[in-house]
Amino acid sequence: MMQPEKGHSGKSLKQRLVLKSSLVKETLSEFLGTFIMIVLGCGSIAQATLSRGTFGGILTINVGFAMAVVMAIYVTGGVSGGHINPAVSLAMCLFGRMKWFKLPFYVGAQFLGAFAGAAAVFGIYYDGFMSFAGGKLLIEGENATAHIFATYPAPYLSLPNAFADQVVSTMFLLMVVFAIFDSRNMGVPKGLEPIVIGLLIIAISSSLGLNCGCAMNPARDLSPRLFTALAGWGFEVFTTGNNFWWIPIVGPLVGAVLGGLIYVLVIEIHHPDGELNFETEQSDGMPGKYELSVIM
Amino acid sequence: MMQPEKGHSGKSLKQRLVLKSSLVKETLSEFLGTFIMIVLGCGSIAQATLSRGTFGGILTINVGFAMAVVMAIYVTGGVSGGHINPAVSLAMCLFGRMKWFKLPFYVGAQFLGAFAGAAAVFGIYYDGFMSFAGGKLLIEGENATAHIFATYPAPYLSLPNAFADQVVSTMFLLMVVFAIFDSRNMGVPKGLEPIVIGLLIIAISSSLGLNCGCAMNPARDLSPRLFTALAGWGFEVFTTGNNFWWIPIVGPLVGAVLGGLIYVLVIEIHHPDGELNFETEQSDGMPGKYELSVIM
Amino acid sequence: MMQPEKGHSGKSLKQRLVLKSSLVKETLSEFLGTFIMIVLGCGSIAQATLSRGTFGGILTINVGFAMAVVMAIYVTGGVSGGHINPAVSLAMCLFGRMKWFKLPFYVGAQFLGAFAGAAAVFGIYYDGFMSFAGGKLLIEGENATAHIFATYPAPYLSLPNAFADQVVSTMFLLMVVFAIFDSRNMGVPKGLEPIVIGLLIIAISSSLGLNCGCAMNPARDLSPRLFTALAGWGFEVFTTGNNFWWIPIVGPLVGAVLGGLIYVLVIEIHHPDGELNFETEQSDGMPGKYELSVIM
Amino acid sequence: MMQPEKGHSGKSLKQRLVLKSSLVKETLSEFLGTFIMIVLGCGSIAQATLSRGTFGGILTINVGFAMAVVMAIYVTGGVSGGHINPAVSLAMCLFGRMKWFKLPFYVGAQFLGAFAGAAAVFGIYYDGFMSFAGGKLLIEGENATAHIFATYPAPYLSLPNAFADQVVSTMFLLMVVFAIFDSRNMGVPKGLEPIVIGLLIIAISSSLGLNCGCAMNPARDLSPRLFTALAGWGFEVFTTGNNFWWIPIVGPLVGAVLGGLIYVLVIEIHHPDGELNFETEQSDGMPGKYELSVIM
Repeated sequence: MMQPEKGHSGKSLKQRLVLKSSLVKETLSEFLGTFIMIVLGCGSIAQATLSRGTFGGILTINVGFAMAVVMAIYVTGGVSGGHINPAVSLAMCLFGRMKWFKLPFYVGAQFLGAFAGAAAVFGIYYDGFMSFAGGKLLIEGENATAHIFATYPAPYLSLPNAFADQVVSTMFLLMVVFAIFDSRNMGVPKGLEPIVIGLLIIAISSSLGLNCGCAMNPARDLSPRLFTALAGWGFEVFTTGNNFWWIPIVGPLVGAVLGGLIYVLVIEIHHPDGELNFETEQSDGMPGKYELSVIM
Repeated sequence: MMQPEKGHSGKSLKQRLVLKSSLVKETLSEFLGTFIMIVLGCGSIAQATLSRGTFGGILTINVGFAMAVVMAIYVTGGVSGGHINPAVSLAMCLFGRMKWFKLPFYVGAQFLGAFAGAAAVFGIYYDGFMSFAGGKLLIEGENATAHIFATYPAPYLSLPNAFADQVVSTMFLLMVVFAIFDSRNMGVPKGLEPIVIGLLIIAISSSLGLNCGCAMNPARDLSPRLFTALAGWGFEVFTTGNNFWWIPIVGPLVGAVLGGLIYVLVIEIHHPDGELNFETEQSDGMPGKYELSVIM
Repeated sequence: MMQPEKGHSGKSLKQRLVLKSSLVKETLSEFLGTFIMIVLGCGSIAQATLSRGTFGGILTINVGFAMAVVMAIYVTGGVSGGHINPAVSLAMCLFGRMKWFKLPFYVGAQFLGAFAGAAAVFGIYYDGFMSFAGGKLLIEGENATAHIFATYPAPYLSLPNAFADQVVSTMFLLMVVFAIFDSRNMGVPKGLEPIVIGLLIIAISSSLGLNCGCAMNPARDLSPRLFTALAGWGFEVFTTGNNFWWIPIVGPLVGAVLGGLIYVLVIEIHHPDGELNFETEQSDGMPGKYELSVIM
Repeated sequence: MMQPEKGHSGKSLKQRLVLKSSLVKETLSEFLGTFIMIVLGCGSIAQATLSRGTFGGILTINVGFAMAVVMAIYVTGGVSGGHINPAVSLAMCLFGRMKWFKLPFYVGAQFLGAFAGAAAVFGIYYDGFMSFAGGKLLIEGENATAHIFATYPAPYLSLPNAFADQVVSTMFLLMVVFAIFDSRNMGVPKGLEPIVIGLLIIAISSSLGLNCGCAMNPARDLSPRLFTALAGWGFEVFTTGNNFWWIPIVGPLVGAVLGGLIYVLVIEIHHPDGELNFETEQSDGMPGKYELSVIM
C-alpha cells in the first residue's frame, strides 16, 4: 500500500543509495559485523575490568562475547555470511565456499571493523578509563586494562604451548561450525545457526580460555592491539609475553584449515548422498544464503 | 464441541467485553507489556539489592531483566508489536512501520504501565523495603534502594559521556532488532524473535551497562523514577548525578533513530529484491503480525 | 521391519501393559512429571545447601529448578499436558481447557508425585544429610536443611505480604503461560513451549523469589513439607513462620485464576478472529496436544 | 556449477577417501564425538581448577560440559546418532533402536575417543599442569588435579549411596532423552534435540552432581582415569575412594536400562497410535536419522 508520492521519492532516494556491487555490500557488512562483535565483546571485558568485578566476571565475559558474535551474525549473515574472522574466511575459500578474489576485501573489512570497534569501546568508557588507574593505561599488574582489547598469555605459558592452544581451539571452532551448516548432519533449524555458534563459543571459552584468552580470530586480536598501541598503552602491547602478538594471528589460520579438513574427512565426504562440497559459489556471485553463513 | 447454552452465554459475555477499536486494544497491550517488564525486571534488581547480594547479583539482574522483556513481548507481541519502549515506537513510526497517530497512545500506555509496574514492585516487596534500612528510602550509599527503580550514573561519569552511552547502546539495540525482524537477512524463526531479543539485551547489559545502567528506554526509566519521587525517596531522584534524569530519555530517542538508520542504510536497502521498507501499515489499521513486533 | 516372532510376543506383552483409559494414563503421567520436577528441582537446592555453596548457589538453583520443570514437561506434555501443578490444573478447568471430573485425579497424582520426589531426594543425598549437621535435620539456622524441600518466608515477611506475593507471582506465571500457548499471539514454535516456560520461571524466581521462595505450586510445597515432617524434621515445618504452610497452597490457587482471567480479558478475547476459548475438550476425552500443554 | 577439471579431480580424491561401510563411518563418528566431549568438557574442569576458580567454577563447568555434549552431538548425530556414551548405546540396543552387533564397535570407539580427549586436555594445558603444583600431579588435597579427568566421590559418600546415585542420575538422563526423541510426545523440533539434551545435563549436574560428579557415562570416566594413571598420577586413581572407579561404569549401565524401561512403560506404550518401538533398524543398516540420535 505505498503512497505514490512517498514511494516515488523513496525509490529515487534508494536508487542513489543502493549498492550495485555485491562485493562492496559484503565488504561493508563484514565491517559492520566485526565492529558489533568488538564493541559488545570487548565491552564485556571492559565492564568486568573497570568495575573490578562488581558488574561482571568470567561469566558475563564468556556469555557477553558469545552473544556479541551471535548478534553480529544476525546483522550480517544474510549479506556476507557473517564470517567476521579472517580465519573463517580463509577456510571458506580453501574449502570452495567462497571465491578467492573476495578474501582480501573480507579480511580488510574485518581488520578495519575491529579497529573501529576498539576505538568505540575506548570512547564509550572514556571516563571510566580516565578514572580507573588515575588515568594511566597499563599493560600489566592489577590495574592493567590492555587485556580489555587484545589477548595476553598466562604467566606460565610457553610460546609453543600458546601456538598449539590457538591452533587447537580454532580447530574445534571450525569443526563444529562446519557441522552446524552441514544440512546432511543433525541440521540446525534455519535462522538458529547463530545461537548454536554462540553456545559453541561459550563451550570453547569455558574450556580452552585459560592459556591465552581464546582469541581464535586474527582481526579480533591484532586490530584492538594496534589501537591500544596508538591510544596510549604503547608498543609494549606487541612485545609483552615474549612477542606473543603473532600467535593469535597465525595459530587461528592454521587451526581453521585443520578444523575444516578434519570435519570434511571424518564426516562430510562419507554422507551417503555426499558430493564433495568443493564447488564454487553460484555463478551470480551471490553466496548461497545459509551455506556460506559460517562464522566468527 | 461447544455446548449450545454455554456457547450462547459466552458469546454474549464476549460481545460486551470485546474491544472494537484496534487502537484501544493495542494501547491496553502496551500498558500490560510495560507493566510485566518493570515488575519482573526491576523486581530482579530489588531481589539482588534487598538480599544484599545473597539471592541475586549482576547475573540474575541481567538475565532477569532480559527475560522480563522476553515475556512482555510474548504476551503483547501479537497484538501491539510489543514495543514497550517509546524509543522503539518512535523508530517504528520514523521508518514507516507504524502510523504516526498511534504514537502518543503507545507512549502514554508505556509510561503508565511502567509507573504501575514500579508501584507493584514496591508493594510486593513492601515488608522488605520497610526492614532494609530501618524503613528509610535512600538514594545513595550502601543502603540505597532508588536504583532498584531508575538508573543512576557511575561516580566517574560526565554528562556528555552519559549521553553518548545512552545513544550508542540504544543504537545497538535497534540495529540488531531491525536485523532480527528482517526476513531477507538470516531470519530468526517465527515465534523465537523474543528469545533473540532477550539474548541481545543480555549482550548489551553485559558490555555497555557499567556507565549508567543501560536503560535504553524512556518509559522504563522516567516512570519508576517519578514513582520513587512520590513514594518517599524524594525529588532528589531527579537532581542526583548532576540532573542525570533526562539522559535516559533523550539519549535512547536519538540512539533508536540512529540505529534504525544505520541498519537500513548499511544492510536493508541493498537486499537484491530490496524495496525500501517505508510503506505504511496495512490499510485495515492492523500491524503485520511479525513485521511490527519490534521490541523494548 | 518387525520380525514376526518378536513382533508377536511384543504385541501380546504390549496388550497386557497398555492402559485403555486415557484418564489413568494422564494420572500416571502427572505423577511422573511432578516426581521429575521435585527430584531435579529440590535436588538443585540440596546440592547448593549440602555443599554450603561450593557446588551451587542462587544461579544453579534458579536454572536447575526451571530446567527441572522443562524436562518434566517434555516427558509428560504430550500425554497429560504437563501441568505438574494443581493451580495450573484448576485454571485449565476454570477456563474450559480441561474437564472438571479430571481435576481430582490430576491433583492427587501431583501431590503423590511430589511426595515421592521428596523421598527420592532424601534417599539420593542420604549420606550427605547424615554428615551435614552431625545427622541433625534442622529447620532453622545456618545448618537448616528443611528449605531444601519446602519454602519458608524471609524473616521480615508478614503473612498478608506473603499471601500477596504468592498470588502475584502465580498470576504472572499463568498470564505468560496462557500467552505462550495462544497461537493467535506471537506463537512459540511447537515443541519449544517448555523452554520458554523454563525461561519464564527463571525470570520469576530471579525477581519475585526473595520474599518466600516462589513456590507457585501447592503440590511442590505441601508434599515435600509433609515428607520432612515425617522424615525427622518434625511437625514444626508447619508451624514455623507463623503457620506459613498454607500460603503457598491458597495463594497460587487464587493467583492462577487471576492470571488466566487477566490474560483472557486483556488479550485473548480481543483477537480479530477471536472465539472465547471456553469450549470443553474434544469429545474423545483426549486433550488437544498443545492447547492443554500448560504447565507447572 | 562445478568446473569439470576440479570436479573430476575432486571426485577421484573422494573415491579414494570415502568409507564404503557405514559401520566404519559410525565408529569413526563416535570416536570423534567422544573426543570433542572430553576436550571441551574436561577442559572446562581444567580451566576452573588450574585457575583456582578465577576463570571458572561450578557454573562454567556445568554449562561447559553440557555444551561440550551439545557440540559433540551436532558433529556426529547425523552419522552415528551421537551416543558418545556406552550406557546410551546399550539402552539403544536393548530397546531395539540399534543392532546388537554394532555395540562393541560403538563402545570401543567411545573408550578410545575419551582416552584421546584426555590426552589432548593434558597436552593443551601441559604448561599449566607443570606450573600448578610445582609440576606434581596429585589426586587429593587442594592441589589435586586428577578430578579434572575422572570423577571422585564426596568424602561423606558410601559405596551403596554412590552406586544408587549413578543409577538414578543416568536413569533420569535416559528417561528424558527417550522423551526428547519421542515424536508422539511434546516433540522437540528437528535439529534442536542437542540443545534440549544440553539443558537436561545442566539440570542433572545442578541437582545430582554433589555426591560423585555425575559421570553417567562409563567412557567419560574410565578412559580419562586410565590416562591419568599412565600419565603420572599413578594407579591410586583406581583405589582412591574405596575403589570407587567401577561405580561410574556399572551404575550408568544399570541406570540407562532402568530409565529407558520407565519411559517406555509409563509413557511410550500408551500412545493412542502406539506401536511398541521394539522394531530393529531399517534393513539398509542405516539408522533412522533422528530416531537414533539419542545421546551422551
